[in-house]
Amino acid sequence: MNKDKVLALFEDANFIKKLGVKALEVEKGFMKTSLVVQPFHLQQHNFIHAAVIAALADHTAGAAATTLINDDQEVLTIEFKINFLKPAIGNTIYCESKVLRGGKTIIVAESNVYSDITGQEKLLAKAIVTLTPVTQNKLKIS
Amino acid sequence: MNKDKVLALFEDANFIKKLGVKALEVEKGFMKTSLVVQPFHLQQHNFIHAAVIAALADHTAGAAATTLINDDQEVLTIEFKINFLKPAIGNTIYCESKVLRGGKTIIVAESNVYSDITGQEKLLAKAIVTLTPVTQNKLKIS
Amino acid sequence: MNKDKVLALFEDANFIKKLGVKALEVEKGFMKTSLVVQPFHLQQHNFIHAAVIAALADHTAGAAATTLINDDQEVLTIEFKINFLKPAIGNTIYCESKVLRGGKTIIVAESNVYSDITGQEKLLAKAIVTLTPVTQNKLKIS
Amino acid sequence: MNKDKVLALFEDANFIKKLGVKALEVEKGFMKTSLVVQPFHLQQHNFIHAAVIAALADHTAGAAATTLINDDQEVLTIEFKINFLKPAIGNTIYCESKVLRGGKTIIVAESNVYSDITGQEKLLAKAIVTLTPVTQNKLKIS
Repeated sequence: MNKDKVLALFEDANFIKKLGVKALEVEKGFMKTSLVVQPFHLQQHNFIHAAVIAALADHTAGAAATTLINDDQEVLTIEFKINFLKPAIGNTIYCESKVLRGGKTIIVAESNVYSDITGQEKLLAKAIVTLTPVTQNKLKIS
Repeated sequence: MNKDKVLALFEDANFIKKLGVKALEVEKGFMKTSLVVQPFHLQQHNFIHAAVIAALADHTAGAAATTLINDDQEVLTIEFKINFLKPAIGNTIYCESKVLRGGKTIIVAESNVYSDITGQEKLLAKAIVTLTPVTQNKLKIS
Repeated sequence: MNKDKVLALFEDANFIKKLGVKALEVEKGFMKTSLVVQPFHLQQHNFIHAAVIAALADHTAGAAATTLINDDQEVLTIEFKINFLKPAIGNTIYCESKVLRGGKTIIVAESNVYSDITGQEKLLAKAIVTLTPVTQNKLKIS
Repeated sequence: MNKDKVLALFEDANFIKKLGVKALEVEKGFMKTSLVVQPFHLQQHNFIHAAVIAALADHTAGAAATTLINDDQEVLTIEFKINFLKPAIGNTIYCESKVLRGGKTIIVAESNVYSDITGQEKLLAKAIVTLTPVTQNKLKIS
């Protein structure tokens, strides 16, 4: 596992930096991240926007998948599905992603998004993310 | 249909304003939006981040669903699934969402995200979004 | 919890009887089932057909959800998503479903389908199922 | 396109024969099928079981994907998501699947399941199916 490459995903992806997602832990097939909630993350009822939670779930899954690929590869998200289990509130939210299936063409990861609200961990959302490894030289935008 | 209420979804949701999503057309059961792509929307390979596309697909579906509910209701996303069909590039991306099933407790909408790249509309992603109407007084954060 | 009502789901659903799905354990918010694999369950490469696994995942989730509803209610599946993690072989397959979110209008359950192959439990598939409780008198076919 | 190979999917898959799914039309990137509803397809309220509809949606998508692959390949379903839009009744149900994205490692198809009830076509369910081509010699069960 190339840990620096995984951590770079949180520095080199503009959108993830803008959101403020932080890498907390990385292991082979596993990633944990956090996000300190700011006003711009909210929707019209002052809950955290579903799309912010989806972004956290997707990107963390991508990082977990990246722990399993070759040095000259990156992963792309093919698809994901996310269920929102509670209206999302909290000062900080966390995401843990683990790989359910690692393969040469298909990687499947599960992401669980938790809130720290009232000191009790609460499952806000669960996502299943399907990704594919791609060699870096196919990722050039011409 | 309360058009002002639907359009307010694009003014009152901080995260959607931050992203820069614009309302283009609204009809009963239908919504069209656009997003001018900016550097902060990108991921590490300079494609538009999957989560940006998911945000557009989710929020536009929410607006399409909002055209069908009572005045004292709002919609919440229960879940969505999105498939990314092409690496996403373009100056402006568009989303069209139409309601497939409108009901008192469950609304299902389909979102198609298109790029304007090379002057040819291209389907970048397709999402199916399940939402539920909630009366506004249940949406207070205590 | 009305255990008889839950178990009746495995007697009264023709399709589930035809498949041969058996109820093994039922608890509040949880259901475990099994299926002895027969030749008619297979697809063209002699793997268990993806749709058989989906049927097991969906129906078991429905039973888990049924443990949480009122006596005059039944559940209907709104949607599900299933990832197939391995080509499916085995003499008997099992499904465990647990409810992630129980509510008056929306119930979300997770189903894990396992194989007994080579004496080692193996995760074949994972599904997330969204259901809604419906009062029985709305379920009459006129 | 190898039409015979596609049609064989409806003869060689035991489970699909047992269900009674029939091939109606096949074109490059498209498949249409039908199913005459029989008592064993029903669930406990005499609606068609969600899993029967899922089976039709999945297998028809697989056939549509098979029109796009090499002669020495087959497709496997990686995942699908299906939304049930109406309680399912009808004498015959139909499924049309079209490929949204065809690729060397990932194929995505959309399936729409219709009922003939009251002489009016009605959309019962919509599925998005992700598949992967696999060379036949990797599909041997040892």
